[in-house]
Amino acid sequence: MDITHIEHIGIAVKSIENSLPYYENVLGLKCYNIEEVADQKVKTAFFKVGQTKIELLEPTSEDSTVAKFIEKKGEGVHHIAFAVPDVAAALEEADAKGVQLIDKAPRGGAEGLNIAFLHPKSTCSVLTELCQ
Amino acid sequence: MDITHIEHIGIAVKSIENSLPYYENVLGLKCYNIEEVADQKVKTAFFKVGQTKIELLEPTSEDSTVAKFIEKKGEGVHHIAFAVPDVAAALEEADAKGVQLIDKAPRGGAEGLNIAFLHPKSTCSVLTELCQ
Repeated sequence: MDITHIEHIGIAVKSIENSLPYYENVLGLKCYNIEEVADQKVKTAFFKVGQTKIELLEPTSEDSTVAKFIEKKGEGVHHIAFAVPDVAAALEEADAKGVQLIDKAPRGGAEGLNIAFLHPKSTCSVLTELCQ
Repeated sequence: MDITHIEHIGIAVKSIENSLPYYENVLGLKCYNIEEVADQKVKTAFFKVGQTKIELLEPTSEDSTVAKFIEKKGEGVHHIAFAVPDVAAALEEADAKGVQLIDKAPRGGAEGLNIAFLHPKSTCSVLTELCQ
Protein backbone atom coordinates (compact mmCIF):
# COMPACT_ATOMS: atom_id res chain seq x y z
CA MET A 1 0.00 0.00 0.00
CA ASP A 2 1.49 3.32 -1.03
CA ILE A 3 0.93 5.44 2.12
CA THR A 4 2.38 8.96 1.87
CA HIS A 5 1.53 10.34 5.33
CA ILE A 6 -1.00 10.36 8.15
CA GLU A 7 -3.88 12.37 6.77
CA HIS A 8 -5.64 12.79 10.10
CA ILE A 9 -6.21 11.40 13.58
CA GLY A 10 -9.87 11.13 14.58
CA ILE A 11 -10.56 11.83 18.27
CA ALA A 12 -13.94 11.07 19.83
CA VAL A 13 -15.18 13.81 22.17
CA LYS A 14 -18.50 14.30 23.92
CA SER A 15 -18.53 17.99 23.05
CA ILE A 16 -16.48 19.94 20.51
CA GLU A 17 -17.40 23.17 22.30
CA ASN A 18 -15.91 21.90 25.57
CA SER A 19 -12.79 20.53 23.85
CA LEU A 20 -11.90 23.60 21.79
CA PRO A 21 -10.25 25.55 24.67
CA TYR A 22 -7.68 22.76 25.19
CA TYR A 23 -6.80 22.47 21.50
CA GLU A 24 -6.79 26.21 20.84
CA ASN A 25 -5.59 27.80 24.07
CA VAL A 26 -3.26 25.12 25.47
CA LEU A 27 -1.89 23.44 22.33
CA GLY A 28 -2.17 26.64 20.30
CA LEU A 29 -3.80 24.93 17.28
CA LYS A 30 -6.40 26.77 15.21
CA CYS A 31 -9.75 25.18 14.35
CA TYR A 32 -10.23 26.01 10.66
CA ASN A 33 -13.42 24.08 9.92
CA ILE A 34 -16.44 22.66 11.72
CA GLU A 35 -18.77 20.51 9.63
CA GLU A 36 -21.46 17.89 10.12
CA VAL A 37 -21.12 14.51 8.40
CA ALA A 38 -24.73 13.37 8.34
CA ASP A 39 -24.21 9.74 7.31
CA GLN A 40 -21.71 9.18 10.13
CA LYS A 41 -23.90 11.09 12.61
CA VAL A 42 -21.06 13.28 13.80
CA LYS A 43 -20.05 16.90 13.95
CA THR A 44 -16.34 17.33 13.14
CA ALA A 45 -13.79 20.04 13.96
CA PHE A 46 -10.45 20.23 12.15
CA PHE A 47 -7.00 21.49 13.17
CA LYS A 48 -3.82 21.32 11.09
CA VAL A 49 -0.59 20.08 12.74
CA GLY A 50 2.19 19.87 10.15
CA GLN A 51 1.18 17.32 7.47
CA THR A 52 -1.58 15.88 9.63
CA LYS A 53 -5.00 17.03 10.76
CA ILE A 54 -6.67 16.42 14.07
CA GLU A 55 -10.38 15.72 13.58
CA LEU A 56 -12.56 15.96 16.67
CA LEU A 57 -15.68 13.81 16.36
CA GLU A 58 -18.77 14.67 18.39
CA PRO A 59 -21.72 12.29 18.03
CA THR A 60 -24.95 13.97 16.90
CA SER A 61 -27.10 10.96 17.76
CA GLU A 62 -27.08 8.23 20.40
CA ASP A 63 -26.86 5.54 17.72
CA SER A 64 -23.77 7.09 16.15
CA THR A 65 -20.82 4.68 16.11
CA VAL A 66 -18.83 7.44 17.82
CA ALA A 67 -21.41 7.61 20.65
CA LYS A 68 -21.06 3.84 21.06
CA PHE A 69 -17.26 4.13 21.06
CA ILE A 70 -17.38 6.77 23.84
CA GLU A 71 -19.81 4.65 25.84
CA LYS A 72 -17.53 1.61 25.61
CA LYS A 73 -14.04 3.11 25.78
CA GLY A 74 -14.47 6.72 26.84
CA GLU A 75 -13.31 9.78 24.92
CA GLY A 76 -10.02 9.32 23.05
CA VAL A 77 -8.42 8.43 19.75
CA HIS A 78 -11.07 6.85 17.53
CA HIS A 79 -9.21 6.19 14.27
CA ILE A 80 -6.09 6.87 12.23
CA ALA A 81 -6.41 7.87 8.57
CA PHE A 82 -3.60 7.20 6.12
CA ALA A 83 -3.28 9.16 2.87
CA VAL A 84 -2.99 6.95 -0.21
CA PRO A 85 -2.98 7.99 -3.88
CA ASP A 86 -5.81 5.58 -4.80
CA VAL A 87 -8.29 4.33 -2.16
CA ALA A 88 -9.91 1.79 -4.49
CA ALA A 89 -6.54 0.20 -5.33
CA ALA A 90 -5.50 0.20 -1.65
CA LEU A 91 -8.80 -1.47 -0.66
CA GLU A 92 -8.33 -4.12 -3.33
CA GLU A 93 -4.82 -4.82 -2.07
CA ALA A 94 -6.00 -5.01 1.57
CA ASP A 95 -8.82 -7.35 0.58
CA ALA A 96 -6.41 -9.61 -1.34
CA LYS A 97 -4.23 -9.78 1.79
CA GLY A 98 -7.16 -10.97 3.90
CA VAL A 99 -7.97 -7.71 5.69
CA GLN A 100 -11.59 -7.38 6.81
CA LEU A 101 -13.08 -4.28 5.14
CA ILE A 102 -15.80 -2.06 6.59
CA ASP A 103 -16.24 -0.33 3.22
CA LYS A 104 -16.01 -2.52 0.13
CA ALA A 105 -15.71 0.59 -2.05
CA PRO A 106 -14.61 4.20 -1.44
CA ARG A 107 -17.27 6.68 -0.29
CA GLY A 108 -17.43 10.41 0.47
CA GLY A 109 -16.14 11.63 3.84
CA ALA A 110 -15.56 14.97 5.56
CA GLU A 111 -13.74 17.67 3.59
CA GLY A 112 -14.78 16.12 0.26
CA LEU A 113 -12.29 13.24 0.55
CA ASN A 114 -12.67 9.76 -0.85
CA ILE A 115 -12.48 7.40 2.11
CA ALA A 116 -12.83 3.79 3.22
CA PHE A 117 -12.46 2.06 6.59
CA LEU A 118 -10.64 -1.18 7.44
CA HIS A 119 -11.99 -3.26 10.32
CA PRO A 120 -10.02 -3.08 13.61
CA LYS A 121 -10.12 -6.89 13.77
CA SER A 122 -7.58 -6.88 10.95
CA THR A 123 -5.59 -3.79 11.93
CA CYS A 124 -4.25 -4.62 15.41
CA SER A 125 -7.35 -3.04 17.01
CA VAL A 126 -6.87 0.43 15.51
CA LEU A 127 -9.83 1.53 13.39
CA THR A 128 -8.08 2.52 10.18
CA GLU A 129 -9.23 4.83 7.40
CA LEU A 130 -7.75 5.24 3.95
CA CYS A 131 -8.08 8.72 2.44
CA GLN A 132 -7.49 10.15 -1.01
CA MET B 1 2.65 26.18 22.54
CA ASP B 2 4.71 26.11 19.39
CA ILE B 3 3.84 22.67 17.95
CA THR B 4 5.46 21.96 14.58
CA HIS B 5 4.04 18.49 13.79
CA ILE B 6 2.96 15.17 15.23
CA GLU B 7 6.22 13.49 16.18
CA HIS B 8 4.66 10.06 16.73
CA ILE B 9 1.56 8.09 17.60
CA GLY B 10 2.05 5.47 20.30
CA ILE B 11 0.02 2.28 19.83
CA ALA B 12 -0.27 -0.32 22.60
CA VAL B 13 0.05 -3.90 21.35
CA LYS B 14 0.31 -7.19 23.19
CA SER B 15 3.05 -8.39 20.87
CA ILE B 16 5.24 -6.48 18.44
CA GLU B 17 6.12 -9.74 16.71
CA ASN B 18 2.44 -10.49 16.00
CA SER B 19 1.72 -6.90 14.89
CA LEU B 20 4.63 -6.50 12.45
CA PRO B 21 3.02 -8.43 9.57
CA TYR B 22 0.08 -5.97 9.46
CA TYR B 23 2.27 -2.86 9.52
CA GLU B 24 4.88 -4.21 7.12
CA ASN B 25 2.96 -6.47 4.73
CA VAL B 26 -0.46 -4.80 4.62
CA LEU B 27 0.36 -1.11 5.19
CA GLY B 28 3.77 -1.45 3.52
CA LEU B 29 5.62 0.47 6.27
CA LYS B 30 9.16 -0.53 7.24
CA CYS B 31 10.15 -1.07 10.87
CA TYR B 32 13.51 0.72 11.18
CA ASN B 33 14.17 0.33 14.90
CA ILE B 34 13.20 -1.89 17.82
CA GLU B 35 14.37 -0.79 21.25
CA GLU B 36 13.56 -1.38 24.88
CA VAL B 37 12.77 1.60 27.13
CA ALA B 38 13.55 0.13 30.54
CA ASP B 39 12.04 2.87 32.73
CA GLN B 40 8.72 2.68 30.88
CA LYS B 41 8.81 -1.15 30.87
CA VAL B 42 8.09 -1.38 27.15
CA LYS B 43 9.65 -2.65 23.98
CA THR B 44 9.10 -0.23 21.09
CA ALA B 45 9.05 -0.63 17.30
CA PHE B 46 9.20 2.39 14.98
CA PHE B 47 7.87 3.06 11.49
CA LYS B 48 8.09 6.33 9.57
CA VAL B 49 4.97 7.66 7.80
CA GLY B 50 5.68 11.07 6.27
CA GLN B 51 6.58 13.50 9.08
CA THR B 52 5.23 11.20 11.77
CA LYS B 53 6.36 7.94 13.33
CA ILE B 54 4.23 5.08 14.50
CA GLU B 55 5.59 3.65 17.75
CA LEU B 56 4.30 0.22 18.76
CA LEU B 57 4.49 -0.31 22.53
CA GLU B 58 4.66 -3.81 23.92
CA PRO B 59 4.70 -4.12 27.72
CA THR B 60 7.71 -6.00 29.11
CA SER B 61 6.19 -6.33 32.58
CA GLU B 62 2.70 -6.79 34.03
CA ASP B 63 3.03 -3.58 36.03
CA SER B 64 3.92 -1.50 32.96
CA THR B 65 1.44 1.35 32.41
CA VAL B 66 1.01 0.00 28.87
CA ALA B 67 0.01 -3.43 30.24
CA LYS B 68 -2.57 -1.70 32.45
CA PHE B 69 -3.84 0.32 29.49
CA ILE B 70 -4.33 -2.88 27.42
CA GLU B 71 -6.06 -4.58 30.34
CA LYS B 72 -8.50 -1.67 30.73
CA LYS B 73 -9.10 -0.51 27.16
CA GLY B 74 -7.65 -3.23 24.93
CA GLU B 75 -4.97 -2.74 22.29
CA GLY B 76 -5.11 0.57 20.43
CA VAL B 77 -3.81 4.13 20.33
CA HIS B 78 -2.08 4.86 23.64
CA HIS B 79 -0.78 8.42 23.17
CA ILE B 80 -0.07 11.24 20.73
CA ALA B 81 3.29 13.01 20.79
CA PHE B 82 3.64 16.57 19.53
CA ALA B 83 7.00 17.97 18.45
CA VAL B 84 7.89 21.26 20.14
CA PRO B 85 11.16 23.22 19.95
CA ASP B 86 11.53 23.38 23.75
CA VAL B 87 9.84 20.82 26.02
CA ALA B 88 10.72 22.68 29.24
CA ALA B 89 9.15 25.91 27.95
CA ALA B 90 6.05 24.06 26.68
CA LEU B 91 5.65 22.33 30.07
CA GLU B 92 5.92 25.65 31.87
CA GLU B 93 3.27 27.14 29.58
CA ALA B 94 0.94 24.13 30.08
CA ASP B 95 1.43 24.31 33.85
CA ALA B 96 0.63 28.04 33.87
CA LYS B 97 -2.58 27.27 31.94
CA GLY B 98 -3.69 24.79 34.59
CA VAL B 99 -2.85 21.55 32.74
CA GLN B 100 -2.11 18.60 35.02
CA LEU B 101 1.44 17.37 34.29
CA ILE B 102 2.67 13.79 34.58
CA ASP B 103 6.28 14.97 34.22
CA LYS B 104 7.21 18.22 35.93
CA ALA B 105 10.47 18.33 33.95
CA PRO B 106 11.64 16.82 30.64
CA ARG B 107 13.23 13.34 30.76
CA GLY B 108 14.83 10.97 28.28
CA GLY B 109 12.56 8.86 26.06
CA ALA B 110 12.99 6.42 23.17
CA GLU B 111 15.27 7.48 20.32
CA GLY B 112 17.22 9.85 22.58
CA LEU B 113 14.43 12.45 22.62
CA ASN B 114 13.64 14.86 25.43
CA ILE B 115 10.04 14.12 26.44
CA ALA B 116 7.31 14.91 28.96
CA PHE B 117 3.73 13.70 29.37
CA LEU B 118 0.59 15.73 30.10
CA HIS B 119 -2.18 14.04 32.07
CA PRO B 120 -5.24 12.88 30.06
CA LYS B 121 -7.49 14.56 32.66
CA SER B 122 -6.38 17.88 31.19
CA THR B 123 -6.09 16.85 27.53
CA CYS B 124 -9.60 15.68 26.61
CA SER B 125 -8.71 12.11 27.61
CA VAL B 126 -5.83 11.70 25.15
CA LEU B 127 -2.53 10.90 26.86
CA THR B 128 -0.29 13.58 25.36
CA GLU B 129 3.48 13.66 25.05
CA LEU B 130 5.69 16.62 24.18
CA CYS B 131 8.90 15.75 22.30
CA GLN B 132 12.00 17.69 21.41
